[in-house]
Amino acid sequence: MSEHDTFLAQAHDLLGERGLTQDPELVTPWLTDWRGRFTGRALALASPASTEEVAALVRLCATHGVPIVPQGGNSGMSGGATPDESGTTLLLSLRRMNKVRRFNLAAREITCDAGYVLQTLHETAAAEGLRFPLTLGGKGSATVGGLISTNAGGSQVLRHGSMRAQVLGLEAVLADGSIFNSLEHLKKDNRGFDLKQVLIGSEGTLGIVTAATLRLVPAIAERAVLWIGLAHIRDARRLLLQAEEMAADALEAFEVLPKHSLEAVLAYSPNARAPLGHAHEWHALIELVADRAAAERLPALAQELLESAFEQGLVEDAAIAQNEAQAEAFWALREEISPAERAIGPAMQHDISVPVARMANFVAEAVPEVERAFPGTRGIAFGHLGDGNVHFHVLAPEGARRGEWEAGEGKQVSAFVHDLVTSWHGSISAEHGIGQLKRDELVRLGDPVQLAMMQRIKQALDPQGLLNPGKLMPPSPHKLAPPGATA
Amino acid sequence: MSEHDTFLAQAHDLLGERGLTQDPELVTPWLTDWRGRFTGRALALASPASTEEVAALVRLCATHGVPIVPQGGNSGMSGGATPDESGTTLLLSLRRMNKVRRFNLAAREITCDAGYVLQTLHETAAAEGLRFPLTLGGKGSATVGGLISTNAGGSQVLRHGSMRAQVLGLEAVLADGSIFNSLEHLKKDNRGFDLKQVLIGSEGTLGIVTAATLRLVPAIAERAVLWIGLAHIRDARRLLLQAEEMAADALEAFEVLPKHSLEAVLAYSPNARAPLGHAHEWHALIELVADRAAAERLPALAQELLESAFEQGLVEDAAIAQNEAQAEAFWALREEISPAERAIGPAMQHDISVPVARMANFVAEAVPEVERAFPGTRGIAFGHLGDGNVHFHVLAPEGARRGEWEAGEGKQVSAFVHDLVTSWHGSISAEHGIGQLKRDELVRLGDPVQLAMMQRIKQALDPQGLLNPGKLMPPSPHKLAPPGATA
Repeated sequence: MSEHDTFLAQAHDLLGERGLTQDPELVTPWLTDWRGRFTGRALALASPASTEEVAALVRLCATHGVPIVPQGGNSGMSGGATPDESGTTLLLSLRRMNKVRRFNLAAREITCDAGYVLQTLHETAAAEGLRFPLTLGGKGSATVGGLISTNAGGSQVLRHGSMRAQVLGLEAVLADGSIFNSLEHLKKDNRGFDLKQVLIGSEGTLGIVTAATLRLVPAIAERAVLWIGLAHIRDARRLLLQAEEMAADALEAFEVLPKHSLEAVLAYSPNARAPLGHAHEWHALIELVADRAAAERLPALAQELLESAFEQGLVEDAAIAQNEAQAEAFWALREEISPAERAIGPAMQHDISVPVARMANFVAEAVPEVERAFPGTRGIAFGHLGDGNVHFHVLAPEGARRGEWEAGEGKQVSAFVHDLVTSWHGSISAEHGIGQLKRDELVRLGDPVQLAMMQRIKQALDPQGLLNPGKLMPPSPHKLAPPGATA
Repeated sequence: MSEHDTFLAQAHDLLGERGLTQDPELVTPWLTDWRGRFTGRALALASPASTEEVAALVRLCATHGVPIVPQGGNSGMSGGATPDESGTTLLLSLRRMNKVRRFNLAAREITCDAGYVLQTLHETAAAEGLRFPLTLGGKGSATVGGLISTNAGGSQVLRHGSMRAQVLGLEAVLADGSIFNSLEHLKKDNRGFDLKQVLIGSEGTLGIVTAATLRLVPAIAERAVLWIGLAHIRDARRLLLQAEEMAADALEAFEVLPKHSLEAVLAYSPNARAPLGHAHEWHALIELVADRAAAERLPALAQELLESAFEQGLVEDAAIAQNEAQAEAFWALREEISPAERAIGPAMQHDISVPVARMANFVAEAVPEVERAFPGTRGIAFGHLGDGNVHFHVLAPEGARRGEWEAGEGKQVSAFVHDLVTSWHGSISAEHGIGQLKRDELVRLGDPVQLAMMQRIKQALDPQGLLNPGKLMPPSPHKLAPPGATA
C-alpha cells in the first residue's frame, strides 16, 4: 500500500462514506474556480461533519504529509480554494458543517458553522427582525468560513466594515490539528495577542475556520436610494463628503459608475432604463437607511442632501427611487456592469484601493494614463468610492481575441495598473484577496518587511506547509529585508 | 571595555546627550510603575527622537543582546513598562517622539508619533470640531504608543470600541530593527494577514510602536447624563437592553455602581452629593450623546428612555443632569470610586469581563460566593456593564493590615476570582492587559492552544527574546498542547 493509499484508507475510516469520496462526478465540479480561471486535481474530497472530524483529519494529514486545500462555497475570486495540478492535495469542503449553533437575539449574536451559507444567514436574521450587514454577488453559495478566510467585502463596507468587523468569535483547526476556540464573545479581552485577527483573511494558510460568532444589526425599516448625475468624478468625492457630513450613520452605500458602464448595461440588459433624462459623465448611487427609530426622518434627510448638493453645484441631475421596485432597478444597473462588460469583449479586471480621499484623483489620472500606455484600450473604474475601492477594468482594443489578449498584452496592462496603484500607496487587492491569482504580484510589489513577517508567522504556525500551499504566501521562504529597510 | 560599556558608548554616539542617560535623577522616576507595585533597574534610559533612531538603536541592541523595555507615559496598570531587577535592560522611552505628522480633516484621520499624549490628542481634535473617542483616567500622561500596545479601554468602549478600533494605520520597529509601516489608511486591503492587528495589544513584546494613524469622530454637540436608582443589578441589564434598543448609536456609556461605592465616595469626597433622595442597591450612570445633526432630539430621547424604563418597573428613581456642572458631578461620583475605596483599607482589584449578557448574573452570584469563601471580605463590582467589564474589588476584612493582607489572603482571593471568571468563560484581563502583574495567572488559566500560538508567534518575530522580556509571555517556551486539545 502506498502512503497515499494508507492515508485514504484511514481517512475513510475516520469520515465514513459521506465524508470522503474520490468519485470524479462528485469531485470534479469543485476543482475549477468560480470564474473558471484555475483548474486543479485532488487526492480526494473530504467533507467532515464536525470540528472534531476536521481536527482528526488534519492530524492524519500532518502524519502523512498530505497538503490540504480548504473550500467553502467555491465562489472566491482569486483561485484561493482551487488545488494545484499535482493531485497530491486533499480538498477539504466545509459545506457539510452548516448549522446554527446558537442564536442570541438580545445580544444580536449568532454562532454558526463554517459551511453556513450567506443567503441563509440573511434569511435567519431577517426572520427575527435583524440583519447580517454584509452582502455580495455570490451570497447563494458563499459560506461563513470562506467569507472570514478571505475577509470578504461587498457594498455595505462603507457603514459596517468588511467581514473582519462582523466576527466576534472564531473557531479554527490549526495545522497540528489542535482546535483554536474563541467563539465566546467578550467585548473586552486583553489577554495577549488577538489571535483571531491573524486567522481572519489568512485564506486558509494558517488554520481552517470551522465556526464563528457573528454580529447582527437591527433590520432596515426604511431606505432611500438616490441616483445622481455628475459632471466629474471629483464632484462625486465632494458629494461623498457632504453625504457623510449630513447623513452620518444613515449612509449605507456610495457607489460610482462612469457613463460607459451605464451605456454598457443599457445595451446589454433589455429591462434596464436610464434613471435620468440626459447623459452624464459620472453617476453616484447612494443608499441611505434607517432602523425603526429613525425611519420617519429618512425621506426628509434624502431630500435635504440633494438640495444641499444642488446648491453647491455638485450635481447635474438626480432622482430618488419612488418605490422598492425602482430602488431595485437602480441597484440592478450597478450589479449588471460586470456581465455587460464581459459581453463587449476581453478585459483585465483589477480590484484595487487607494486612500479614500485620493480615489477620485486616482481615477481621473489613472484612466488616461493606462489608455495612453496601451493604445486602443479603454479604462473603466466603478464601484465603492466610499471605501476608496474601485473595480478598475481595462477593455481590450477592438478586434482583440478573447483568451489571447488576456494572456499577452492583458498581463502587461495588469502589471502597469498594479505598479500605478502601488505608487499611489494603494492595494492590489482591496477585497478579493490574493489566492493564486495575485500571489506573484504580491511578491513583486509587497513591502519586504511585511512579506517577511507573514512568512515568519506562516512558518511558526504551519511549519510543514500543509495548509493551502501555493496560495497567498510565496512558494519558498521569502528573505527577510535587510535590517533597517523601510516600507 | 565590557560588552555593556561598548553598547552604551555606541548608543550614546547614536542618540547624543539628550537621547541617552544613566543619570539616576532622570532615570529613577521611570523605574517604578504608576501604581507603585513594581520597581526595576535599567542599564540606561534611551529617548530616541525619530523612528530611524529607534530602528538603529534596536539593531544595536540586537547586536549586543541587550533586552529592551519600551515605555510611553508609564501609566499602565499591570507593570508592563517597568523593567525587571537585573539592571541589564535598556529602558526605551518614546516620549520625545510627540509630534503630529499629518492631520487630514476631511477624512477625519490623524497620524501622530507614539509619544503623543492622549490629553493633547483630545485638544487637537477638539480645536477642529472633532474628537478622539477614547478616554481614561491617565489621559494626562498616557501616550498613543502605550494605548495601542495595551489595547486600552475606558468608558467609551460601549459605542466606539477599544483602542484597536481607533487604529487605522501603524508604524513599529520590529525586533531586528526593520520598520513595519502601514500608516497609510486603506479602508479595504486584502493583501494577506492584517499584521497591525498582531502588534496592537502585544504589550511591546513583538514590536515597538513608533506612530499611528487614528480615526476621529464628530464632536459632541449635546449630551444627556442620567443617574438612575435600581433595586437589582439584573434590572441594570434590562435597562441596558432598553437603552440599546431606544438610543442605538446615541448610547455613549452605561456604567453601574453599587450602594457601597456611592457611600464610599460620599464619605471620602467633601464635595460629593447623592443625586437621588433615597438609597438604592444599585445605580446606573448613562450618557447619551448627539452630534450637531441629532442634537435637537436628544433631550426628548433621554426623557422617553426614562419613561419607558419607569413603565416597565425597571427603575426606582432617576435624575437627568440639568447642566454641564451636574453632568460632571455625576461622572465624578463614578471616577472617585477607586480612591474612595483605597481610603477604606486594603483591597484586591480585578479587571474582568464575561459575555455582556451574563455580567449581571455573574455579579449577583460571584459577590456572595467570594464573601462566603473569605469571611469578612466584601465584594464590590462597578464599571462598564455595557461592555461586560466590571472592576471587581474585594475589600479586606476589618483590621487587615495593608501590605500584609494583599500578599497573603489577598493572593488567594485573586486566584479565586480568576478561577470563577474563567469558569464563566470570561477574561482575567478585560482592559488592563497582562504585563508582569497577571503573567503567571495567564499561564495558569489561559487556553493551552492559544498560549502555544502566542509563543510561536513571539518566537517567530523576536527569536532573541529581546522585546519586553518577562511581560505577557511565559518566561520559557510554553509547551504546545497535545494535538486535539480543545479550549
